[in-house]
Amino acid sequence: MSEAETAAITRMLHARAEALRTKDAALLAADYAAELVSYDLAPPLVTRGIDRLALERWLAGWDGPVTGEMWELRIDVGGDVAFSTSLNRMCARAKRGKDMDLWVPTTLGFRKFEDRWRIVHEHISVPFYMDGSERAALDLRPEAREDQE
Amino acid sequence: MSEAETAAITRMLHARAEALRTKDAALLAADYAAELVSYDLAPPLVTRGIDRLALERWLAGWDGPVTGEMWELRIDVGGDVAFSTSLNRMCARAKRGKDMDLWVPTTLGFRKFEDRWRIVHEHISVPFYMDGSERAALDLRPEAREDQE
Repeated sequence: MSEAETAAITRMLHARAEALRTKDAALLAADYAAELVSYDLAPPLVTRGIDRLALERWLAGWDGPVTGEMWELRIDVGGDVAFSTSLNRMCARAKRGKDMDLWVPTTLGFRKFEDRWRIVHEHISVPFYMDGSERAALDLRPEAREDQE
Repeated sequence: MSEAETAAITRMLHARAEALRTKDAALLAADYAAELVSYDLAPPLVTRGIDRLALERWLAGWDGPVTGEMWELRIDVGGDVAFSTSLNRMCARAKRGKDMDLWVPTTLGFRKFEDRWRIVHEHISVPFYMDGSERAALDLRPEAREDQE
């Protein structure tokens, strides 16, 4: 059964990548549970629930699709609880300001409600340089890690 | 059973807070599974396994205890899989450089092996300011969020 659940969550994540590409805010928002707890790239420390208008505004700020990649996906499932980890790339051309090409360590927490997996927790972040600059490390690539090994 | 598992994980997290205070690297390291995947505050994007020497060095860099608080702890358990979310404060006096007083959104992923919960995933981060500075938001406090509501 765990393989079937893992496959269901994997399909959901691929559908979300496609919804990001086509900027389908409704589809993206529908995967979240009302009890969502988010730790996001920007302040504040935590938000609760999904702000669909903010999501639509964010998607509308990009010129054309928001594309991406998902590396090193791992999904752990136990009963009606699951979590996933992956390195997600997000790329888009800005209408104003800087284009986005960013690798984002991503953790999602899921619960199954009435036979459907929903996201109850989303944690996306980038590390920051502890070199005194305290700048977000927006230029990291997974390859860089492998080069160090 | 879920309540008992939630209680076991809660005890583990409180024991870890105490181990941080007393700088007990052995106890902190023993909670991690060999397959640990970490998304940490500093680069790289991802590390695997626990580097106990690095943990000891980090603890040794602080003058006296590393104290903290844990707010808004939520634990979801399903079978042998669980994850937790919380806002963790970490405070310490630096031997050199800047003291630490930081709120860190924290997600942990757990699996139960041979009747013991272990951490298989750790994701700790701070948001960054999207105001052009791209600086890590090291000054955020949970209270600030509640003031906004």
